[in-house]
Amino acid sequence: MTSAVLPNASQPLRIGLAGLGTVGASVLKILQRQENALAARCGRAIRVVAVSARDRKRDRGIDLGGFTWFDDPVALAKSAEVDCVVELMGGSDGPAKAAVEAALSAGKHVVTANKALLAAHGVALAELAESNGVALAFEASSAGGIPVVKTLREALAGNNVSRISGILNGTCNYILSRMEQEGLTFEACLADAQRLGYAEADPTFDVEGFDTAHKLAILTSLSFGTKIDAEAIHVEGISAITPLDLRMADELGYRIKLLGVAERTKTGIEQRVHPTMVPKASAIAQVMGVLNAVSIDADAVREITLVGPGAGGDPTASAVVADIADVARGTAGLPFGLPVGRLEEPTRAPMQRHEGGYYVRLAVADRPGAAAAIATRMAEADISLESIVQRRSPEAVNRDPGGRSGAPVPVVLITYATSESAIRAALEKVTADGHVAEPPQVIRIERE
Amino acid sequence: MTSAVLPNASQPLRIGLAGLGTVGASVLKILQRQENALAARCGRAIRVVAVSARDRKRDRGIDLGGFTWFDDPVALAKSAEVDCVVELMGGSDGPAKAAVEAALSAGKHVVTANKALLAAHGVALAELAESNGVALAFEASSAGGIPVVKTLREALAGNNVSRISGILNGTCNYILSRMEQEGLTFEACLADAQRLGYAEADPTFDVEGFDTAHKLAILTSLSFGTKIDAEAIHVEGISAITPLDLRMADELGYRIKLLGVAERTKTGIEQRVHPTMVPKASAIAQVMGVLNAVSIDADAVREITLVGPGAGGDPTASAVVADIADVARGTAGLPFGLPVGRLEEPTRAPMQRHEGGYYVRLAVADRPGAAAAIATRMAEADISLESIVQRRSPEAVNRDPGGRSGAPVPVVLITYATSESAIRAALEKVTADGHVAEPPQVIRIERE
Repeated sequence: MTSAVLPNASQPLRIGLAGLGTVGASVLKILQRQENALAARCGRAIRVVAVSARDRKRDRGIDLGGFTWFDDPVALAKSAEVDCVVELMGGSDGPAKAAVEAALSAGKHVVTANKALLAAHGVALAELAESNGVALAFEASSAGGIPVVKTLREALAGNNVSRISGILNGTCNYILSRMEQEGLTFEACLADAQRLGYAEADPTFDVEGFDTAHKLAILTSLSFGTKIDAEAIHVEGISAITPLDLRMADELGYRIKLLGVAERTKTGIEQRVHPTMVPKASAIAQVMGVLNAVSIDADAVREITLVGPGAGGDPTASAVVADIADVARGTAGLPFGLPVGRLEEPTRAPMQRHEGGYYVRLAVADRPGAAAAIATRMAEADISLESIVQRRSPEAVNRDPGGRSGAPVPVVLITYATSESAIRAALEKVTADGHVAEPPQVIRIERE
Repeated sequence: MTSAVLPNASQPLRIGLAGLGTVGASVLKILQRQENALAARCGRAIRVVAVSARDRKRDRGIDLGGFTWFDDPVALAKSAEVDCVVELMGGSDGPAKAAVEAALSAGKHVVTANKALLAAHGVALAELAESNGVALAFEASSAGGIPVVKTLREALAGNNVSRISGILNGTCNYILSRMEQEGLTFEACLADAQRLGYAEADPTFDVEGFDTAHKLAILTSLSFGTKIDAEAIHVEGISAITPLDLRMADELGYRIKLLGVAERTKTGIEQRVHPTMVPKASAIAQVMGVLNAVSIDADAVREITLVGPGAGGDPTASAVVADIADVARGTAGLPFGLPVGRLEEPTRAPMQRHEGGYYVRLAVADRPGAAAAIATRMAEADISLESIVQRRSPEAVNRDPGGRSGAPVPVVLITYATSESAIRAALEKVTADGHVAEPPQVIRIERE
């Protein structure tokens, strides 16, 4: 009988690996270490036959002598000895894109960890894979070692997802965790993160939220069966968060996390990346340091949360190898779980229509009536306040016991659910009234 | 070109559903609600053609008119109109086993949520599935809606798992959470759980740890590539846990959870189910109420934790439907991820060789020297104490301010890592010395 589920004990899957950084080196080591187990799991051997990287001479602690070397990843992708290209070079365009396109066009499977490439060109590449009848697998592109792509694409196949949210960047979570726990500034924690190798020399991509946005774009598509729409994402980073914000959050029962959130709202699909106040008792608030976490709300399963390492050589390689194993077993399926022709054009929910609670911190001139005037502006905009905290620091009271100097003091407002447009309009008026000494700090609150 | 990854737009997958309880009814509803999406995802329609249950007349809120009715699930399993049998009857033997065996023998795929069946006969059934070239899928058997089976079998294919632990029974977690948060007794919380439908009329199976043990047996096999060995599991339930234990845990920085734990130790594979003190700050300690959670330690991914609903109609049905979708797509793979011939015979690590920290609560006659004598017995057994707490309650002090009555007072010891045999031997001596008024309460501690 022909087996419907057993892999054929057929030819080895021949891998061409493009990119030999930390993740690439880990992939090679895991494929060697797990050679027998993987062959048993997949019903066939997995064999790396070719590699490509920028620098042939760099010592990676691995003997590359047994592999055909390619200076050009596109030539590797086209090589007749390769069945499956593993792309670990990175970058949304350039050699990575050229190599992936060449591989798919030549009828070769592709496994990639490249979130920038997917966010920019994921749908076109999925179409190319589909028309060539090959796999395009990208578990490692989102949340590193956490199997969120497989979970969305396969484990939740019977669900309608209504919301996905997560901590998708370990660098930002590390910085916010240290700022909170040690009362340090953003700059000090960033410097430490750079020293420890958790942040790049140019940290913009991580700390300004763009890395999170790329991952979110991919997860949104998998969650809602829509085409990737990375440009629709509202993106704010964490560089403006201050120790005072973290202290106020703590006092009010919250922590601050950089979240990526995508949800179906009545106006369409809302995608946003921004610092977020989450209740201290929530599952997401417990995720500290470089860990990532993803929570998915769906109609049948209700809510599941996956927590694990979102970066690092071995955890990312774990996801890459899982994809390779799926390709070897012939079970990789369609890139987004659906034929590209079935992916819907997403309706964008404009950020102005976002509804939720807000934390607003104002530097208010310490004059009688300032707080009252601000509260009045909020009331005019139909914004209900859950709390208002005005507190001069002990140092400020020492300097000016009578409060006569008019030096700005922080006033923090917590609102009940309102709209982004209402809060923005109210704050424009507050600023125009001349009560505040610097632009308001606005942090959105997620209460569930 | 023949596609290596696209499902064939072929015949519908014809489902025969045996068991129409809460989960079965949810499965039917989800398959109806998601009919189009599932067909797109799987490349073919999924069609329920036959059903079987004990009572044909019961109102399940679903029109069964379109399905062929079978009084006998074995007849359904053998029916020529069925390609895939979904077994939701439960029970380790009897009709469930007969129907699953009949289906597999007849070359039909099987999807089941039946943990008792898998724990008792999983390997034999996997062998039957393998030799008939059909799928045996059981995501719903362990931790309900949490995709832990798929994660172990597929997402961690490149990992060596060293440990898996989890909260696998929502009833127990609900009871322990309420006991802790409201200071109630086990009996009071159990009664509430029964009233709310979280516990059966006969709660033994849940509260004495047997349900957790069945699930653990399956997860151990998937984690370590070993044959299921449910009889090796050391099982203790939660019925002996008192409000005093939870109060002491809280004071000492712990929570008490019923954990299933399987790990590779130097003496073999240790499988155990027992109440466990976990640090309050740990991820597992945050999991309250009826939720389940599973943490997996593995060499490449390090640690991932999955949290979600472990029971309930819709969450369990979510897992059943995911398995059905895998069968429809032809990607279900081997039941345990490896050919049965490759599953190893597990070496059992005897519980006496277990090593870890212990919480020991003794009812000590309140006489001078009792605590010292106990501490001496511990020292003789080479057990180091991290802390020792002897505290009379305020009421006891009121009743007997001089402490002359000799009425027993609780003494709590927290040990550093020691062995089960050492702690048992020491406590036997303490008991023989006549210092304690009742059998010692012993709760293991997991510090990571």
